Amino acid sequence: MRTCVSSMAAGSSMEWLKSVKGVILDMCGVLYDSGEGGGQAIHGSIEAVKRLMDSGLIVRFCTNETQNTREKFVQKLRAMGFDISVSHVFSPAPALVRILRERRLRPHLLVHDDLMPEFDDVDTSSPNCVVIGDAADKFSYQNLNEAFRVLIGLEKPLLFSLGQGRYYKETDGLKLDVGVFMKALEYACDVQAEVVGKPSADFFQTVLNDMSLQPHEAVMIGDDLLNDVGGAQSCGMKGIQVRTGKYRPSDEKHPSVRADGYVDDLAAAADAILTSSLTNH
Amino acid sequence: MRTCVSSMAAGSSMEWLKSVKGVILDMCGVLYDSGEGGGQAIHGSIEAVKRLMDSGLIVRFCTNETQNTREKFVQKLRAMGFDISVSHVFSPAPALVRILRERRLRPHLLVHDDLMPEFDDVDTSSPNCVVIGDAADKFSYQNLNEAFRVLIGLEKPLLFSLGQGRYYKETDGLKLDVGVFMKALEYACDVQAEVVGKPSADFFQTVLNDMSLQPHEAVMIGDDLLNDVGGAQSCGMKGIQVRTGKYRPSDEKHPSVRADGYVDDLAAAADAILTSSLTNH
Repeated sequence: MRTCVSSMAAGSSMEWLKSVKGVILDMCGVLYDSGEGGGQAIHGSIEAVKRLMDSGLIVRFCTNETQNTREKFVQKLRAMGFDISVSHVFSPAPALVRILRERRLRPHLLVHDDLMPEFDDVDTSSPNCVVIGDAADKFSYQNLNEAFRVLIGLEKPLLFSLGQGRYYKETDGLKLDVGVFMKALEYACDVQAEVVGKPSADFFQTVLNDMSLQPHEAVMIGDDLLNDVGGAQSCGMKGIQVRTGKYRPSDEKHPSVRADGYVDDLAAAADAILTSSLTNH
Repeated sequence: MRTCVSSMAAGSSMEWLKSVKGVILDMCGVLYDSGEGGGQAIHGSIEAVKRLMDSGLIVRFCTNETQNTREKFVQKLRAMGFDISVSHVFSPAPALVRILRERRLRPHLLVHDDLMPEFDDVDTSSPNCVVIGDAADKFSYQNLNEAFRVLIGLEKPLLFSLGQGRYYKETDGLKLDVGVFMKALEYACDVQAEVVGKPSADFFQTVLNDMSLQPHEAVMIGDDLLNDVGGAQSCGMKGIQVRTGKYRPSDEKHPSVRADGYVDDLAAAADAILTSSLTNH
Protein backbone atom coordinates (compact mmCIF):
# COMPACT_ATOMS: atom_id res chain seq x y z
CA MET A 1 0.00 0.00 0.00
CA ARG A 2 2.93 2.31 0.59
CA THR A 3 3.90 2.09 -3.09
CA CYS A 4 0.36 2.85 -4.09
CA VAL A 5 -0.07 5.92 -1.95
CA SER A 6 3.27 7.34 -2.98
CA SER A 7 2.39 6.77 -6.62
CA MET A 8 -1.05 8.31 -6.22
CA ALA A 9 0.47 11.33 -4.58
CA ALA A 10 3.38 11.72 -6.95
CA GLY A 11 1.65 13.73 -9.69
CA SER A 12 -0.70 15.80 -7.62
CA SER A 13 -2.48 16.03 -4.29
CA MET A 14 -4.78 13.18 -3.33
CA GLU A 15 -7.39 15.66 -2.13
CA TRP A 16 -9.72 14.77 -5.00
CA LEU A 17 -10.16 11.24 -3.65
CA LYS A 18 -12.13 12.72 -0.77
CA SER A 19 -14.94 13.88 -3.08
CA VAL A 20 -15.34 10.49 -4.74
CA LYS A 21 -18.84 9.10 -4.29
CA GLY A 22 -18.76 6.48 -7.00
CA VAL A 23 -16.32 4.09 -8.61
CA ILE A 24 -16.54 2.69 -12.14
CA LEU A 25 -14.51 -0.47 -12.62
CA ASP A 26 -13.17 -1.80 -15.88
CA MET A 27 -13.38 -5.58 -15.77
CA CYS A 28 -10.88 -7.47 -17.97
CA GLY A 29 -7.36 -6.77 -16.71
CA VAL A 30 -8.68 -5.19 -13.49
CA LEU A 31 -10.93 -7.84 -11.97
CA TYR A 32 -9.53 -10.80 -13.88
CA ASP A 33 -7.14 -11.89 -16.63
CA SER A 34 -8.91 -13.48 -19.58
CA GLY A 35 -7.69 -16.57 -21.36
CA GLU A 36 -8.31 -20.27 -21.90
CA GLY A 37 -11.09 -21.60 -19.68
CA GLY A 38 -12.53 -18.12 -19.10
CA GLY A 39 -9.55 -16.66 -17.27
CA GLN A 40 -8.86 -16.13 -13.58
CA ALA A 41 -9.40 -13.48 -10.91
CA ILE A 42 -6.52 -11.10 -10.23
CA HIS A 43 -5.18 -11.55 -6.70
CA GLY A 44 -7.07 -9.43 -4.20
CA SER A 45 -9.66 -8.09 -6.64
CA ILE A 46 -12.66 -10.12 -5.36
CA GLU A 47 -12.16 -8.71 -1.86
CA ALA A 48 -11.46 -5.21 -3.23
CA VAL A 49 -14.81 -5.13 -5.05
CA LYS A 50 -16.55 -6.29 -1.89
CA ARG A 51 -14.82 -3.66 0.24
CA LEU A 52 -15.72 -0.86 -2.20
CA MET A 53 -19.38 -1.98 -2.26
CA ASP A 54 -19.59 -2.40 1.51
CA SER A 55 -18.16 1.10 2.06
CA GLY A 56 -21.30 2.79 0.72
CA LEU A 57 -19.66 4.01 -2.48
CA ILE A 58 -21.75 3.55 -5.63
CA VAL A 59 -19.99 0.89 -7.73
CA ARG A 60 -20.64 0.16 -11.40
CA PHE A 61 -18.84 -1.99 -13.96
CA CYS A 62 -18.01 -0.79 -17.42
CA THR A 63 -16.55 -3.15 -19.99
CA ASN A 64 -15.88 -3.26 -23.71
CA GLU A 65 -16.30 -7.03 -23.55
CA THR A 66 -18.01 -8.21 -26.72
CA GLN A 67 -17.07 -11.88 -26.80
CA ASN A 68 -20.09 -12.80 -24.72
CA THR A 69 -23.58 -11.58 -23.88
CA ARG A 70 -23.70 -9.45 -20.77
CA GLU A 71 -25.59 -12.21 -18.93
CA LYS A 72 -23.05 -14.93 -19.75
CA PHE A 73 -20.21 -12.59 -18.94
CA VAL A 74 -21.57 -11.82 -15.48
CA GLN A 75 -22.18 -15.54 -14.89
CA LYS A 76 -18.49 -16.15 -15.62
CA LEU A 77 -17.37 -13.50 -13.14
CA ARG A 78 -19.76 -14.80 -10.47
CA ALA A 79 -18.25 -18.25 -10.94
CA MET A 80 -14.85 -16.69 -10.19
CA GLY A 81 -16.25 -15.34 -6.92
CA PHE A 82 -17.30 -11.77 -7.81
CA ASP A 83 -20.64 -10.61 -6.40
CA ILE A 84 -21.91 -8.60 -9.39
CA SER A 85 -25.44 -7.81 -10.57
CA VAL A 86 -26.16 -7.80 -14.34
CA SER A 87 -27.92 -4.45 -14.04
CA HIS A 88 -24.72 -2.83 -12.74
CA VAL A 89 -22.69 -3.91 -15.77
CA PHE A 90 -22.50 -1.63 -18.84
CA SER A 91 -21.29 -3.17 -22.11
CA PRO A 92 -21.36 -1.99 -25.75
CA ALA A 93 -23.79 -4.46 -27.32
CA PRO A 94 -26.95 -3.45 -25.40
CA ALA A 95 -26.03 0.22 -25.99
CA LEU A 96 -25.67 -0.42 -29.72
CA VAL A 97 -28.97 -2.32 -29.93
CA ARG A 98 -30.69 0.81 -28.57
CA ILE A 99 -28.96 2.96 -31.22
CA LEU A 100 -29.90 0.57 -34.04
CA ARG A 101 -33.53 0.70 -32.91
CA GLU A 102 -33.61 4.50 -32.57
CA ARG A 103 -32.06 5.03 -36.01
CA ARG A 104 -33.88 2.12 -37.68
CA LEU A 105 -30.66 0.49 -38.86
CA ARG A 106 -30.20 -3.08 -40.06
CA PRO A 107 -26.64 -4.28 -39.36
CA HIS A 108 -24.34 -6.71 -41.07
CA LEU A 109 -22.73 -8.26 -37.99
CA LEU A 110 -19.09 -9.27 -37.68
CA VAL A 111 -19.11 -10.18 -34.01
CA HIS A 112 -18.23 -13.14 -31.83
CA ASP A 113 -20.64 -16.09 -32.11
CA ASP A 114 -21.26 -15.92 -28.37
CA LEU A 115 -22.39 -12.27 -28.65
CA MET A 116 -25.03 -13.05 -31.30
CA PRO A 117 -27.92 -13.60 -28.81
CA GLU A 118 -27.73 -9.84 -27.97
CA PHE A 119 -28.97 -9.23 -31.53
CA ASP A 120 -31.78 -11.82 -31.50
CA ASP A 121 -34.46 -9.16 -31.92
CA VAL A 122 -32.55 -7.07 -34.48
CA ASP A 123 -33.47 -7.11 -38.18
CA THR A 124 -30.36 -8.00 -40.19
CA SER A 125 -31.99 -8.27 -43.63
CA SER A 126 -30.70 -5.97 -46.45
CA PRO A 127 -28.08 -4.43 -44.15
CA ASN A 128 -27.55 -0.66 -44.26
CA CYS A 129 -24.62 -0.57 -41.82
CA VAL A 130 -21.81 -2.79 -40.55
CA VAL A 131 -21.14 -3.62 -36.90
CA ILE A 132 -17.88 -5.09 -35.68
CA GLY A 133 -17.07 -6.36 -32.20
CA ASP A 134 -14.18 -8.34 -30.82
CA ALA A 135 -14.80 -11.24 -33.19
CA ALA A 136 -11.36 -12.83 -32.44
CA ASP A 137 -10.88 -15.88 -34.68
CA LYS A 138 -13.85 -14.77 -36.79
CA PHE A 139 -11.65 -11.92 -38.07
CA SER A 140 -10.70 -14.06 -41.06
CA TYR A 141 -9.79 -12.60 -44.45
CA GLN A 142 -13.06 -13.94 -45.82
CA ASN A 143 -15.24 -12.38 -43.11
CA LEU A 144 -13.41 -9.05 -43.31
CA ASN A 145 -13.91 -9.03 -47.09
CA GLU A 146 -17.58 -9.73 -46.62
CA ALA A 147 -18.02 -6.83 -44.17
CA PHE A 148 -15.97 -4.61 -46.49
CA ARG A 149 -18.15 -5.42 -49.50
CA VAL A 150 -21.35 -4.57 -47.61
CA LEU A 151 -19.79 -1.31 -46.42
CA ILE A 152 -18.35 -0.17 -49.76
CA GLY A 153 -21.64 -1.07 -51.44
CA LEU A 154 -23.62 1.39 -49.29
CA GLU A 155 -24.33 4.83 -50.65
CA LYS A 156 -23.01 6.26 -47.39
CA PRO A 157 -20.89 3.63 -45.63
CA LEU A 158 -21.79 3.44 -41.92
CA LEU A 159 -19.53 1.47 -39.58
CA PHE A 160 -20.09 0.88 -35.86
CA SER A 161 -17.28 -0.48 -33.71
CA LEU A 162 -17.91 -1.96 -30.28
CA GLY A 163 -14.89 -0.32 -28.68
CA GLN A 164 -11.63 0.80 -30.26
CA GLY A 165 -9.07 -1.09 -28.18
CA ARG A 166 -5.72 -1.94 -29.76
CA TYR A 167 -5.00 -5.19 -27.97
CA TYR A 168 -5.66 -7.07 -24.77
CA LYS A 169 -3.83 -9.63 -22.74
CA GLU A 170 -4.97 -13.22 -22.42
CA THR A 171 -3.21 -15.82 -20.32
CA ASP A 172 -1.40 -17.02 -23.48
CA GLY A 173 -0.31 -13.57 -24.65
CA LEU A 174 -1.41 -10.29 -26.25
CA LYS A 175 -4.26 -10.40 -28.78
CA LEU A 176 -5.47 -7.85 -31.31
CA ASP A 177 -8.65 -6.05 -30.29
CA VAL A 178 -11.55 -4.72 -32.36
CA GLY A 179 -10.04 -1.23 -32.84
CA VAL A 180 -7.39 -2.69 -35.11
CA PHE A 181 -10.03 -4.08 -37.47
CA MET A 182 -12.02 -0.87 -37.18
CA LYS A 183 -8.96 1.02 -38.49
CA ALA A 184 -8.60 -1.56 -41.27
CA LEU A 185 -12.17 -1.09 -42.51
CA GLU A 186 -12.02 2.69 -41.99
CA TYR A 187 -9.00 2.83 -44.32
CA ALA A 188 -10.52 0.42 -46.85
CA CYS A 189 -13.68 2.52 -47.22
CA ASP A 190 -12.34 5.96 -46.29
CA VAL A 191 -14.88 6.34 -43.46
CA GLN A 192 -14.76 7.03 -39.76
CA ALA A 193 -16.44 4.50 -37.49
CA GLU A 194 -18.87 5.41 -34.74
CA VAL A 195 -17.47 3.88 -31.55
CA VAL A 196 -19.95 2.42 -29.08
CA GLY A 197 -18.41 1.61 -25.69
CA LYS A 198 -15.38 3.14 -24.00
CA PRO A 199 -13.99 5.77 -24.62
CA SER A 200 -17.24 7.19 -26.07
CA ALA A 201 -18.50 10.04 -23.89
CA ASP A 202 -22.11 8.92 -24.43
CA PHE A 203 -21.24 5.55 -22.99
CA PHE A 204 -19.63 6.95 -19.83
CA GLN A 205 -22.51 9.38 -19.42
CA THR A 206 -25.03 6.51 -19.42
CA VAL A 207 -23.16 4.97 -16.49
CA LEU A 208 -23.00 8.29 -14.61
CA ASN A 209 -26.73 8.79 -15.15
CA ASP A 210 -27.39 5.37 -13.66
CA MET A 211 -25.27 6.33 -10.63
CA SER A 212 -26.97 9.75 -10.35
CA LEU A 213 -23.54 11.33 -10.00
CA GLN A 214 -21.75 14.28 -11.54
CA PRO A 215 -18.52 13.45 -13.39
CA HIS A 216 -16.26 14.98 -10.70
CA GLU A 217 -17.83 12.68 -8.12
CA ALA A 218 -16.73 9.51 -9.92
CA VAL A 219 -13.44 7.77 -10.59
CA MET A 220 -12.76 5.22 -13.33
CA ILE A 221 -10.28 2.44 -12.60
CA GLY A 222 -8.86 0.63 -15.62
CA ASP A 223 -5.82 -1.04 -17.16
CA ASP A 224 -6.21 0.79 -20.51
CA LEU A 225 -4.66 4.25 -20.37
CA LEU A 226 -6.44 5.65 -23.43
CA ASN A 227 -9.87 4.03 -23.33
CA ASP A 228 -10.43 3.82 -19.57
CA VAL A 229 -8.38 6.64 -18.06
CA GLY A 230 -8.30 9.06 -21.01
CA GLY A 231 -11.95 8.42 -21.87
CA ALA A 232 -13.10 9.05 -18.29
CA GLN A 233 -10.95 12.18 -17.98
CA SER A 234 -12.48 13.55 -21.20
CA CYS A 235 -15.86 13.36 -19.47
CA GLY A 236 -14.65 15.19 -16.38
CA MET A 237 -14.07 12.11 -14.24
CA LYS A 238 -10.82 11.12 -12.58
CA GLY A 239 -8.98 8.09 -13.90
CA ILE A 240 -6.68 5.63 -12.13
CA GLN A 241 -4.58 3.11 -14.03
CA VAL A 242 -3.79 -0.27 -12.46
CA ARG A 243 -0.51 -2.01 -13.25
CA THR A 244 -2.28 -5.25 -14.18
CA GLY A 245 -3.80 -6.56 -17.44
CA LYS A 246 -2.53 -4.75 -20.50
CA TYR A 247 -0.65 -2.11 -18.50
CA ARG A 248 2.84 -1.41 -19.84
CA PRO A 249 5.46 0.67 -17.97
CA SER A 250 5.65 3.06 -20.98
CA ASP A 251 2.02 4.06 -20.22
CA GLU A 252 3.35 6.18 -17.34
CA LYS A 253 5.34 8.26 -19.83
CA HIS A 254 2.56 8.67 -22.39
CA PRO A 255 2.88 12.01 -24.24
CA SER A 256 -0.76 13.07 -23.96
CA VAL A 257 -2.63 11.06 -21.30
CA ARG A 258 -1.64 11.06 -17.64
CA ALA A 259 -3.65 9.12 -15.08
CA ASP A 260 -4.66 10.82 -11.83
CA GLY A 261 -3.02 7.89 -10.10
CA TYR A 262 -1.11 4.72 -10.89
CA VAL A 263 -1.52 1.77 -8.55
CA ASP A 264 -0.26 -1.80 -8.53
CA ASP A 265 -3.70 -3.40 -8.68
CA LEU A 266 -7.34 -3.01 -7.75
CA ALA A 267 -6.65 -3.93 -4.13
CA ALA A 268 -4.22 -0.99 -3.91
CA ALA A 269 -6.74 1.32 -5.59
CA ALA A 270 -9.42 0.29 -3.09
CA ASP A 271 -6.97 0.89 -0.22
CA ALA A 272 -6.25 4.41 -1.43
CA ILE A 273 -9.88 5.31 -2.13
CA LEU A 274 -11.22 3.88 1.13
CA THR A 275 -8.47 5.47 3.21
CA SER A 276 -9.28 8.88 1.72
CA SER A 277 -13.04 8.62 1.51
CA LEU A 278 -13.33 7.20 5.03
CA THR A 279 -11.99 10.47 6.36
CA ASN A 280 -14.86 12.09 4.51
CA HIS A 281 -17.70 9.95 5.81
CA MET B 1 -11.31 6.59 -79.26
CA ARG B 2 -13.44 9.69 -79.54
CA THR B 3 -14.51 9.33 -75.91
CA CYS B 4 -10.94 8.94 -74.87
CA VAL B 5 -9.59 12.00 -76.62
CA SER B 6 -12.40 14.18 -75.36
CA SER B 7 -11.77 12.95 -71.82
CA MET B 8 -8.03 13.46 -72.09
CA ALA B 9 -8.57 16.97 -73.30
CA ALA B 10 -11.28 17.86 -70.80
CA GLY B 11 -9.10 18.90 -67.88
CA SER B 12 -6.21 20.47 -69.70
CA SER B 13 -4.38 20.59 -73.01
CA MET B 14 -2.98 17.34 -74.38
CA GLU B 15 0.25 19.07 -75.31
CA TRP B 16 2.19 17.21 -72.64
CA LEU B 17 1.60 13.91 -74.42
CA LYS B 18 3.99 15.10 -77.14
CA SER B 19 6.96 15.08 -74.75
CA VAL B 20 6.31 11.53 -73.53
CA LYS B 21 9.27 9.23 -74.21
CA GLY B 22 8.39 6.44 -71.84
CA VAL B 23 5.32 4.70 -70.49
CA ILE B 24 5.05 2.88 -67.17
CA LEU B 25 2.18 0.44 -67.04
CA ASP B 26 0.46 -0.84 -63.95
CA MET B 27 -0.47 -4.47 -64.52
CA CYS B 28 -3.45 -5.79 -62.55
CA GLY B 29 -6.60 -3.93 -63.63
CA VAL B 30 -4.82 -2.42 -66.65
CA LEU B 31 -3.42 -5.42 -68.54
CA TYR B 32 -5.65 -8.06 -66.97
CA ASP B 33 -8.30 -8.72 -64.34
CA SER B 34 -7.13 -11.10 -61.65
CA GLY B 35 -9.24 -13.89 -60.22
CA GLU B 36 -9.77 -17.64 -60.16
CA GLY B 37 -7.47 -19.45 -62.57
CA GLY B 38 -5.06 -16.52 -62.74
CA GLY B 39 -7.42 -14.01 -64.34
CA GLN B 40 -7.86 -12.85 -67.92
CA ALA B 41 -6.50 -10.17 -70.25
CA ILE B 42 -8.55 -6.99 -70.56
CA HIS B 43 -9.90 -6.59 -74.10
CA GLY B 44 -7.43 -4.83 -76.37
CA SER B 45 -4.60 -4.64 -73.82
CA ILE B 46 -2.30 -7.27 -75.39
CA GLU B 47 -2.32 -5.37 -78.69
CA ALA B 48 -1.99 -2.02 -76.88
CA VAL B 49 1.22 -3.14 -75.13
CA LYS B 50 2.60 -4.37 -78.46
CA ARG B 51 1.75 -1.10 -80.20
CA LEU B 52 3.41 0.98 -77.47
CA MET B 53 6.56 -1.16 -77.60
CA ASP B 54 6.70 -1.16 -81.39
CA SER B 55 6.38 2.64 -81.47
CA GLY B 56 9.85 3.16 -80.02
CA LEU B 57 8.58 4.40 -76.65
CA ILE B 58 10.38 2.96 -73.62
CA VAL B 59 7.90 0.70 -71.83
CA ARG B 60 8.22 -0.63 -68.29
CA PHE B 61 5.83 -2.45 -65.98
CA CYS B 62 5.32 -1.50 -62.38
CA THR B 63 3.21 -3.62 -60.10
CA ASN B 64 2.47 -3.98 -56.41
CA GLU B 65 1.75 -7.67 -57.04
CA THR B 66 2.98 -9.67 -54.08
CA GLN B 67 0.99 -12.88 -54.44
CA ASN B 68 3.67 -14.39 -56.66
CA THR B 69 7.37 -14.17 -57.41
CA ARG B 70 8.17 -11.79 -60.24
CA GLU B 71 9.19 -14.73 -62.45
CA LYS B 72 5.95 -16.67 -61.92
CA PHE B 73 3.93 -13.52 -62.37
CA VAL B 74 5.52 -12.75 -65.74
CA GLN B 75 5.01 -16.38 -66.80
CA LYS B 76 1.29 -15.96 -66.08
CA LEU B 77 1.06 -12.83 -68.21
CA ARG B 78 3.01 -14.43 -71.04
CA ALA B 79 0.54 -17.31 -70.97
CA MET B 80 -2.24 -14.75 -71.47
CA GLY B 81 -0.43 -13.48 -74.56
CA PHE B 82 1.59 -10.51 -73.27
CA ASP B 83 5.16 -10.20 -74.57
CA ILE B 84 6.91 -9.07 -71.38
CA SER B 85 10.48 -9.48 -70.18
CA VAL B 86 11.10 -10.15 -66.46
CA SER B 87 13.79 -7.45 -66.39
CA HIS B 88 11.21 -4.83 -67.41
CA VAL B 89 8.92 -5.63 -64.49
CA PHE B 90 9.36 -3.79 -61.16
CA SER B 91 7.69 -5.30 -58.09
CA PRO B 92 8.04 -4.64 -54.34
CA ALA B 93 9.60 -7.90 -53.10
CA PRO B 94 12.95 -7.63 -54.95
CA ALA B 95 13.13 -3.96 -53.90
CA LEU B 96 12.53 -4.91 -50.28
CA VAL B 97 15.11 -7.70 -50.34
CA ARG B 98 17.71 -5.08 -51.34
CA ILE B 99 16.65 -2.85 -48.42
CA LEU B 100 16.79 -5.75 -45.93
CA ARG B 101 20.31 -6.55 -47.09
CA GLU B 102 21.51 -2.94 -46.97
CA ARG B 103 20.12 -2.42 -43.47
CA ARG B 104 20.96 -5.90 -42.19
CA LEU B 105 17.40 -6.63 -41.18
CA ARG B 106 15.88 -10.03 -40.42
CA PRO B 107 12.14 -10.03 -41.19
CA HIS B 108 9.20 -11.87 -39.75
CA LEU B 109 7.26 -12.48 -42.97
CA LEU B 110 3.49 -12.32 -43.34
CA VAL B 111 3.31 -12.75 -47.11
CA HIS B 112 1.63 -15.04 -49.61
CA ASP B 113 3.06 -18.56 -49.73
CA ASP B 114 3.78 -18.12 -53.45
CA LEU B 115 5.94 -15.05 -52.73
CA MET B 116 8.17 -16.89 -50.25
CA PRO B 117 10.82 -17.95 -52.83
CA GLU B 118 11.76 -14.24 -53.21
CA PHE B 119 13.06 -14.46 -49.62
CA ASP B 120 14.97 -17.73 -50.01
CA ASP B 121 18.31 -16.05 -49.31
CA VAL B 122 17.05 -13.82 -46.49
CA ASP B 123 17.85 -14.58 -42.82
CA THR B 124 14.58 -14.75 -40.90
CA SER B 125 15.99 -15.90 -37.55
CA SER B 126 15.39 -13.71 -34.45
CA PRO B 127 13.37 -11.18 -36.48
CA ASN B 128 13.97 -7.46 -35.92
CA CYS B 129 11.26 -6.21 -38.28
CA VAL B 130 7.94 -7.33 -39.75
CA VAL B 131 7.13 -7.48 -43.47
CA ILE B 132 3.59 -7.75 -44.80
CA GLY B 133 2.52 -8.29 -48.39
CA ASP B 134 -0.81 -9.15 -49.95
CA ALA B 135 -1.11 -12.38 -47.98
CA ALA B 136 -4.83 -12.77 -48.85
CA ASP B 137 -6.25 -15.81 -46.98
CA LYS B 138 -3.12 -15.89 -44.82
CA PHE B 139 -4.41 -12.69 -43.15
CA SER B 140 -5.99 -14.81 -40.43
CA TYR B 141 -6.51 -13.57 -36.87
CA GLN B 142 -3.81 -15.98 -35.74
CA ASN B 143 -1.21 -14.80 -38.27
CA LEU B 144 -1.99 -11.14 -37.63
CA ASN B 145 -1.57 -11.73 -33.89
CA GLU B 146 1.76 -13.42 -34.51
CA ALA B 147 3.07 -10.49 -36.59
CA PHE B 148 1.73 -8.07 -33.98
CA ARG B 149 3.51 -9.84 -31.13
CA VAL B 150 6.84 -9.75 -32.96
CA LEU B 151 6.34 -6.06 -33.71
CA ILE B 152 5.24 -4.96 -30.23
CA GLY B 153 8.08 -6.99 -28.73
CA LEU B 154 10.74 -4.97 -30.60
CA GLU B 155 12.40 -2.09 -28.82
CA LYS B 156 11.62 0.07 -31.86
CA PRO B 157 8.85 -1.58 -33.91
CA LEU B 158 9.73 -1.59 -37.64
CA LEU B 159 7.04 -2.51 -40.14
CA PHE B 160 7.47 -2.79 -43.92
CA SER B 161 4.42 -2.97 -46.16
CA LEU B 162 4.65 -4.15 -49.77
CA GLY B 163 2.29 -1.50 -51.10
CA GLN B 164 -0.52 0.32 -49.33
CA GLY B 165 -3.50 -0.45 -51.58
CA ARG B 166 -6.97 -0.48 -50.05
CA TYR B 167 -8.59 -3.13 -52.22
CA TYR B 168 -8.46 -4.71 -55.64
CA LYS B 169 -10.92 -6.36 -57.94
CA GLU B 170 -10.88 -10.04 -58.72
CA THR B 171 -13.30 -11.73 -61.09
CA ASP B 172 -15.43 -12.70 -58.06
CA GLY B 173 -15.48 -9.26 -56.46
CA LEU B 174 -13.49 -6.67 -54.48
CA LYS B 175 -10.85 -7.93 -52.04
CA LEU B 176 -8.99 -6.19 -49.23
CA ASP B 177 -5.40 -5.31 -50.09
CA VAL B 178 -2.27 -5.14 -47.94
CA GLY B 179 -2.70 -1.45 -47.01
CA VAL B 180 -5.70 -2.33 -44.88
CA PHE B 181 -3.64 -4.71 -42.76
CA MET B 182 -0.77 -2.22 -42.68
CA LYS B 183 -3.17 0.31 -41.09
CA ALA B 184 -4.33 -2.37 -38.65
CA LEU B 185 -0.79 -3.12 -37.43
CA GLU B 186 0.17 0.57 -37.47
CA TYR B 187 -2.71 1.30 -35.09
CA ALA B 188 -2.02 -1.75 -32.91
CA CYS B 189 1.62 -0.72 -32.33
CA ASP B 190 1.36 3.05 -32.81
CA VAL B 191 3.96 3.01 -35.62
CA GLN B 192 4.11 4.15 -39.22
CA ALA B 193 5.02 1.53 -41.80
CA GLU B 194 7.67 2.01 -44.47
CA VAL B 195 5.92 1.36 -47.78
CA VAL B 196 7.92 -0.46 -50.46
CA GLY B 197 6.28 -0.36 -53.90
CA LYS B 198 3.87 2.19 -55.33
CA PRO B 199 3.31 5.02 -54.36
CA SER B 200 6.79 5.23 -52.81
CA ALA B 201 8.88 7.83 -54.65
CA ASP B 202 11.99 5.63 -54.31
CA PHE B 203 10.19 2.86 -56.14
CA PHE B 204 9.11 5.05 -59.08
CA GLN B 205 12.60 6.57 -59.25
CA THR B 206 14.15 3.11 -59.64
CA VAL B 207 11.97 2.56 -62.71
CA LEU B 208 12.81 5.99 -64.17
CA ASN B 209 16.54 5.30 -63.64
CA ASP B 210 16.18 2.05 -65.55
CA MET B 211 14.48 3.95 -68.40
CA SER B 212 17.13 6.72 -68.29
CA LEU B 213 14.32 9.27 -68.35
CA GLN B 214 13.45 12.41 -66.43
CA PRO B 215 10.10 12.33 -64.63
CA HIS B 216 8.42 14.78 -67.06
CA GLU B 217 9.28 12.46 -69.95
CA ALA B 218 7.28 9.55 -68.53
CA VAL B 219 3.63 8.78 -68.01
CA MET B 220 2.16 6.24 -65.61
CA ILE B 221 -1.02 4.42 -66.60
CA GLY B 222 -2.96 2.75 -63.83
CA ASP B 223 -6.38 1.89 -62.43
CA ASP B 224 -5.52 3.09 -58.92
CA LEU B 225 -5.98 6.84 -58.58
CA LEU B 226 -3.93 7.26 -55.41
CA ASN B 227 -1.12 4.72 -55.77
CA ASP B 228 -0.58 4.84 -59.55
CA VAL B 229 -1.69 8.29 -60.64
CA GLY B 230 -1.11 10.24 -57.43
CA GLY B 231 2.18 8.47 -56.72
CA ALA B 232 3.53 9.16 -60.22
CA GLN B 233 2.40 12.80 -60.09
CA SER B 234 4.20 13.26 -56.75
CA CYS B 235 7.40 12.29 -58.56
CA GLY B 236 6.85 14.77 -61.38
CA MET B 237 5.41 12.28 -63.86
CA LYS B 238 2.06 12.49 -65.57
CA GLY B 239 -0.63 10.00 -64.62
CA ILE B 240 -3.50 8.57 -66.62
CA GLN B 241 -6.29 6.57 -65.01
CA VAL B 242 -8.01 3.79 -66.96
CA ARG B 243 -11.67 3.00 -66.34
CA THR B 244 -10.95 -0.70 -65.85
CA GLY B 245 -9.94 -2.78 -62.82
CA LYS B 246 -10.66 -1.10 -59.52
CA TYR B 247 -11.67 2.23 -61.16
CA ARG B 248 -14.80 3.75 -59.66
CA PRO B 249 -16.66 6.73 -61.18
CA SER B 250 -16.19 8.66 -57.93
CA ASP B 251 -12.42 8.65 -58.62
CA GLU B 252 -13.02 11.40 -61.19
CA LYS B 253 -14.36 13.65 -58.43
CA HIS B 254 -11.61 12.91 -55.87
CA PRO B 255 -10.97 15.93 -53.61
CA SER B 256 -7.17 15.90 -53.85
CA VAL B 257 -5.93 13.77 -56.77
CA ARG B 258 -6.83 14.52 -60.38
CA ALA B 259 -5.42 12.40 -63.21
CA ASP B 260 -3.90 14.12 -66.25
CA GLY B 261 -6.29 12.02 -68.30
CA TYR B 262 -9.08 9.49 -67.85
CA VAL B 263 -9.51 6.87 -70.57
CA ASP B 264 -11.77 3.86 -70.99
CA ASP B 265 -8.97 1.32 -71.11
CA LEU B 266 -5.34 0.73 -72.03
CA ALA B 267 -6.21 0.52 -75.75
CA ALA B 268 -7.65 4.04 -75.56
CA ALA B 269 -4.61 5.27 -73.65
CA ALA B 270 -2.30 3.82 -76.31
CA ASP B 271 -4.41 5.47 -79.04
CA ALA B 272 -4.08 8.86 -77.37
CA ILE B 273 -0.37 8.56 -76.64
CA LEU B 274 0.54 7.21 -80.07
CA THR B 275 -1.57 9.79 -81.90
CA SER B 276 0.19 12.60 -80.03
CA SER B 277 3.70 11.23 -79.92
CA LEU B 278 3.63 10.24 -83.58
CA THR B 279 3.34 13.91 -84.50
CA ASN B 280 6.51 14.37 -82.50
CA HIS B 281 8.62 11.66 -84.11
